Amino acid sequence: MRQAGRYMAEYRTLREKHSLLDLCRHPELAAEVTLQPVNRLDVDAAILFSDLLLPLDPMGISFDFVEGEGPIIHNPLRSATDIAKLRDFDSRDDLGYVLDTIHLLRRELEGRVPLVGFAGAPFTLASYAIEGGPSRNYENTKALMYGEPKTWHRLCESFVSVISSYLSAQVEAGAQALQIFDSWIGALGPSDYREFALPHSQQILRAASSTGVPVIHFGTGTATLLELMAEAGGDVIGVDWRIPLDDAWKRIGDNHAIQGNLDPTLLLGPTERFSDGITDILRRADKRPGHIFNLGHGILPGTPVENVKMAVHLVHSY
Amino acid sequence: MRQAGRYMAEYRTLREKHSLLDLCRHPELAAEVTLQPVNRLDVDAAILFSDLLLPLDPMGISFDFVEGEGPIIHNPLRSATDIAKLRDFDSRDDLGYVLDTIHLLRRELEGRVPLVGFAGAPFTLASYAIEGGPSRNYENTKALMYGEPKTWHRLCESFVSVISSYLSAQVEAGAQALQIFDSWIGALGPSDYREFALPHSQQILRAASSTGVPVIHFGTGTATLLELMAEAGGDVIGVDWRIPLDDAWKRIGDNHAIQGNLDPTLLLGPTERFSDGITDILRRADKRPGHIFNLGHGILPGTPVENVKMAVHLVHSY
Repeated sequence: MRQAGRYMAEYRTLREKHSLLDLCRHPELAAEVTLQPVNRLDVDAAILFSDLLLPLDPMGISFDFVEGEGPIIHNPLRSATDIAKLRDFDSRDDLGYVLDTIHLLRRELEGRVPLVGFAGAPFTLASYAIEGGPSRNYENTKALMYGEPKTWHRLCESFVSVISSYLSAQVEAGAQALQIFDSWIGALGPSDYREFALPHSQQILRAASSTGVPVIHFGTGTATLLELMAEAGGDVIGVDWRIPLDDAWKRIGDNHAIQGNLDPTLLLGPTERFSDGITDILRRADKRPGHIFNLGHGILPGTPVENVKMAVHLVHSY
Repeated sequence: MRQAGRYMAEYRTLREKHSLLDLCRHPELAAEVTLQPVNRLDVDAAILFSDLLLPLDPMGISFDFVEGEGPIIHNPLRSATDIAKLRDFDSRDDLGYVLDTIHLLRRELEGRVPLVGFAGAPFTLASYAIEGGPSRNYENTKALMYGEPKTWHRLCESFVSVISSYLSAQVEAGAQALQIFDSWIGALGPSDYREFALPHSQQILRAASSTGVPVIHFGTGTATLLELMAEAGGDVIGVDWRIPLDDAWKRIGDNHAIQGNLDPTLLLGPTERFSDGITDILRRADKRPGHIFNLGHGILPGTPVENVKMAVHLVHSY
């Protein structure tokens, strides 16, 4: 969960010279950033350093990252006309730099830990593209969803097509697992999820699974959506900290693995507090196979690296 | 749920001449705004026009509202020293204008509909006071909670003391029901809720109930907290749209009434869509006594007034 990032001094040093997009778009830099936490933290996987929004650019949605505010989309989608103009593209041409980063990483990792690739799920990508950035109420997204359901579904189908081929290109390039981020899906209730998100997520998850690698299906605020997310697909369902891990696992079912679920704010400190939180999660997982210990969402910029190292150590020693 | 506000032309006209705080602080204006939706919408209750943050000011936390960005606290609380400086106060002196508004409203309403007063719950007030405004991750709030639990509890006790007497002053002035807003409590998982929020919410809810009027206990994103919120208190538990009403009611239990739970974005339109949403909620409530139909959170500024009128009409005719 954002294991490479601003909380690490070596990342901040690189960011002094390069923008976030520069880091993503230069394979040598993206590979360097990917390896920073692998080298420092003793984590069990390398997470490709990249961004959920990269596929928007070759579709014709231009954006930038504004320091402290996150992504800003210059031409947010607001109408059927905007959506009709979106372009399909070939990841090998337009996101070739991501695939090159994966190649490079597999060589540099030499099998030390597996490399996880990722992409956004349709609802989450659509919400960025429509709102123009992060949102509290997702009102433009939902207004389109409720008001022009056909246009909504057409937009999601564009994402399904583009993201499905992007994911298989990642696996061909060497990604050994895939994570599908539906980070903002918790804005929907179950019946809206079933109508507006599930059919598209299902298609992307099916495409991801057909590559043969394990697939993680992640969201936040999903306490009432877990059964439906499991139905949509993925070998592993990711859960945030709002639901105890054992309750979540019961809802997801024995035929799925689970990923989670430490509150990232716990890693701000103190040690005793996050150590108790980690032990509680591991106790609830009950040493059953199929638990990937992880945070419930991204590491926060103010997190001390020592705390993250300690957390990894605590999980390993348990 | 914010039934008076920017979506109404008569409210926007007043706001051209007066700031939000001016409206709150002048009883004649606050009463006028309170009555706008009562006169236009045929709703079954008048909701006192006021703001959750008003009690912060006499405690020594100064704030303002910035157009389009919400509240900005000028001196957010960050340390035990900041918190030790907070002042207790007498609502009759420092929030007398709220009580005067209530007096005025009871006279003007002449028993037409009951008047609902309200205040914030400790977690939600603390999160505003600590973050300095709205937040996505509540990282400063949680850092204090986890890192300095004694300081956290002291801060919440200050809110309990101030808010408890503010609520009984509202009832003495004429409020006929009270709503306690724990709008951002969904940021916590159940065990954190039990440790950091429940004891304080319980005290405020007990104080509210001791006034003798019905008490509504509201939050959003609370799918995993409903049992604990019911345990904390209130005659009615408010739920957002992320959980089907019947599921929520089962979790809350037969001894509590329920309020909710339409997604406010549905009222952006179209009619068929929100009409189906309303019918679904009413069907799930199954005509059991103890359901207050309401939105799951505040009306959005872009909502057409006609849609809100139609929603009220649909509920009444069902």
